[in-house]
Amino acid sequence: MTPPAADSALVDRLVLANRILYRQGVVDGFGHVSARHDRSAGHFLLARNMAPGLVRREDIVTFDLDGVAVDAAGRRVYLERFIHGEIYRARADVHAIVHSHSPSVIPFGVTGRSLRPVFHMSGFLGEGAGLFEIRDIADDTDMLVSSGPLGVALARALGARSAVLMRGHGSTVVGATVEQAVYRAIYAEVNARLQLNAIALGEVNYLNAREAAKAAAVNDTQLPRVWDLWVRDLGPVD
Amino acid sequence: MTPPAADSALVDRLVLANRILYRQGVVDGFGHVSARHDRSAGHFLLARNMAPGLVRREDIVTFDLDGVAVDAAGRRVYLERFIHGEIYRARADVHAIVHSHSPSVIPFGVTGRSLRPVFHMSGFLGEGAGLFEIRDIADDTDMLVSSGPLGVALARALGARSAVLMRGHGSTVVGATVEQAVYRAIYAEVNARLQLNAIALGEVNYLNAREAAKAAAVNDTQLPRVWDLWVRDLGPVD
Amino acid sequence: MTPPAADSALVDRLVLANRILYRQGVVDGFGHVSARHDRSAGHFLLARNMAPGLVRREDIVTFDLDGVAVDAAGRRVYLERFIHGEIYRARADVHAIVHSHSPSVIPFGVTGRSLRPVFHMSGFLGEGAGLFEIRDIADDTDMLVSSGPLGVALARALGARSAVLMRGHGSTVVGATVEQAVYRAIYAEVNARLQLNAIALGEVNYLNAREAAKAAAVNDTQLPRVWDLWVRDLGPVD
Amino acid sequence: MTPPAADSALVDRLVLANRILYRQGVVDGFGHVSARHDRSAGHFLLARNMAPGLVRREDIVTFDLDGVAVDAAGRRVYLERFIHGEIYRARADVHAIVHSHSPSVIPFGVTGRSLRPVFHMSGFLGEGAGLFEIRDIADDTDMLVSSGPLGVALARALGARSAVLMRGHGSTVVGATVEQAVYRAIYAEVNARLQLNAIALGEVNYLNAREAAKAAAVNDTQLPRVWDLWVRDLGPVD
Repeated sequence: MTPPAADSALVDRLVLANRILYRQGVVDGFGHVSARHDRSAGHFLLARNMAPGLVRREDIVTFDLDGVAVDAAGRRVYLERFIHGEIYRARADVHAIVHSHSPSVIPFGVTGRSLRPVFHMSGFLGEGAGLFEIRDIADDTDMLVSSGPLGVALARALGARSAVLMRGHGSTVVGATVEQAVYRAIYAEVNARLQLNAIALGEVNYLNAREAAKAAAVNDTQLPRVWDLWVRDLGPVD
Repeated sequence: MTPPAADSALVDRLVLANRILYRQGVVDGFGHVSARHDRSAGHFLLARNMAPGLVRREDIVTFDLDGVAVDAAGRRVYLERFIHGEIYRARADVHAIVHSHSPSVIPFGVTGRSLRPVFHMSGFLGEGAGLFEIRDIADDTDMLVSSGPLGVALARALGARSAVLMRGHGSTVVGATVEQAVYRAIYAEVNARLQLNAIALGEVNYLNAREAAKAAAVNDTQLPRVWDLWVRDLGPVD
Repeated sequence: MTPPAADSALVDRLVLANRILYRQGVVDGFGHVSARHDRSAGHFLLARNMAPGLVRREDIVTFDLDGVAVDAAGRRVYLERFIHGEIYRARADVHAIVHSHSPSVIPFGVTGRSLRPVFHMSGFLGEGAGLFEIRDIADDTDMLVSSGPLGVALARALGARSAVLMRGHGSTVVGATVEQAVYRAIYAEVNARLQLNAIALGEVNYLNAREAAKAAAVNDTQLPRVWDLWVRDLGPVD
Repeated sequence: MTPPAADSALVDRLVLANRILYRQGVVDGFGHVSARHDRSAGHFLLARNMAPGLVRREDIVTFDLDGVAVDAAGRRVYLERFIHGEIYRARADVHAIVHSHSPSVIPFGVTGRSLRPVFHMSGFLGEGAGLFEIRDIADDTDMLVSSGPLGVALARALGARSAVLMRGHGSTVVGATVEQAVYRAIYAEVNARLQLNAIALGEVNYLNAREAAKAAAVNDTQLPRVWDLWVRDLGPVD
């Protein structure tokens, strides 16, 4: 079943999200960001297999939740599209997902340290981050979430949280909008760097659960401010 | 009571301060800088709610010390304008204030480590930095200084110092001029990074109180040199 | 014996490799990258003695495996061309080599810590990195691999691995193609930074040998994606 | 006594040195670089009091070794010109001097840790760096080397070495040419960062004295390569 065309403004935002995540250092040549289809909850939009920093409108492909492309037209797709499909299936509240290898986050996943909110900007980490150990699901793998069952296991490790660490791989964050998911991916990285430095200084006084929840709520009202800045910093998008 | 128009050169300096703080990495999409009104000690100038890196002359709003905008004309204002109003009320010597989440400073606030002058450029930290724990004033909050009483408490934690750390949030620095406040915000961040690295190496021999005071005095005579550079590095300000 | 002219596309790739390694921070004014000659396994291509970030087509010189230039025409050559010649002699599978002082890798070489794969992108480090101690071969030297025998010893320390650390100097990585060697040089640096930060946090759960091998295999299929990005980020190459 | 005009090419190199040191992150708005006058060993060239990143030919002033400007024509001069004068007086082999607050070096000075050569590029640190404690000479000061006697004491702490750390202030490096002094200032900073990271990993195997001396000698033959790159990276110098 092919869904109707997605909202053109949503596609534009998804292109900008790809570019912003590259410019802000969350993704390099790898990583990807998706948006749930605005007119079909059973589909999502994701670039074809390419560097996010180069994505244009015409590179956006539509997938169903099993990770089957409905309009790839021969274009190569990401091996890990199952990250997106299975999280959208498990979490009706999620409308955008960022998977990245953002560098400050990775040391937490490989040491089993919890990522916790050092400051109000990362209140969305109030419930910590899930930890996905692919060895618990499969034998020695290539570390990629390259099948439906691995996607299901990742979604389970994410649970109701905003972020999940993937041991020896990277992390995935989710949001209710493209802007929120991008915000969370950027500030998960910022928070991880702050947390690394704070741990080196002494015992860290993290935001407690109620502080984190309240901070997250108020920060969401400020998203347009920072999204505008990120877009402006891109300069012209070719 | 509406004050007379502020000095046009002061408004220009405040716009530049916004841009400089972004370019130098002290603020990102968040944070703000204000100047006390030059013709009314009971008012201050602050941008409308927006990313500091994009501020223009027409974005500057005038507030009274209670944080009430006198010329917002419907424009959205910063939730934390009370930081500025209450510090101006408590500190007649202060004519400019920078609030930021500058990254190297935050680990100090969340571990209760004192920020101290590692080198002469940060002599203004000779008396250390105050530490504001919002939990001492209010129950679990969203961490923001979003009311008069919270602003009063922050001003009290600042005391007569140049800087105050805000646990789980960021920091605020003050100055006698826009240039001095910007200088202090930039070098508080530089000093924090130096201090983090020095602590990793061994016991740190900080500037003592008299060295710090003398260094701060002489550095103030060099402000035009570095302000000129920061302005030049901005390139054309659109 | 002078070999026939190398494939023009290979020379282009080697020029791009020089520029990419500079832009990505793997080399500064020093370091070099070579490619085995495509029509003569006994020769390789390497820039004349110059900063890699400035290399053009006309700067590429052809050498035999003894490090003798066949077409230098008076141009000054790198003192350490023996790194390349002796590794090509010892490793028929190697067709490109990067020697650099990439900064995060050096602390491993001087402390004798093993470089190990923190994440799937550095699966090529599954067998670790060799460690070359020049003092084992020669008396106190200038640290440079500036003779055939030193090159032979370096190739022996490399063994069948992808990378060798050179104590007090830098590192060398090898690949089956120019793209793969560049990829490995960049991600050896990324991995080293991740590993430094992870070690500071706690005990690190590295990829095991089978995970590393599988991840390396799948990553090799993604090389065109990231190479395209690196080329685009160069902008026009003068 | 007014010396004859300095070699125009030397003045050009000094202007480039100012710009390069800024672009490479060794100086910010502060710090300075000088060259001994090529036709009068009793004089040196140094910019007027300004940010090094903005220096032009017309900003270069001639001083005698007492720090008296012979052609300032009312222009404000650096408070710390005595660093330069007294080192030139004490060290006939020195023809260029860089004073900076380069960030990775400062943690060594304030903890009394020795700066030592981690890799061959910093062989010039083979004899370590001197440590200047201004408290040994004067009571609590503003930390600046702002008089002849303080300059004499600094030159004594430098001794016959290439670099001296200044506690709570910064560092000074010297060279036989402008190019060599710039090279040493840049690689003192690089080495300090490597050393900080290596110390975090374990016991560091530094270059020994003979290795350092040999590496320094061979690196000096490579200076034009890297100077060309630094100049090219400046782009047009306005």
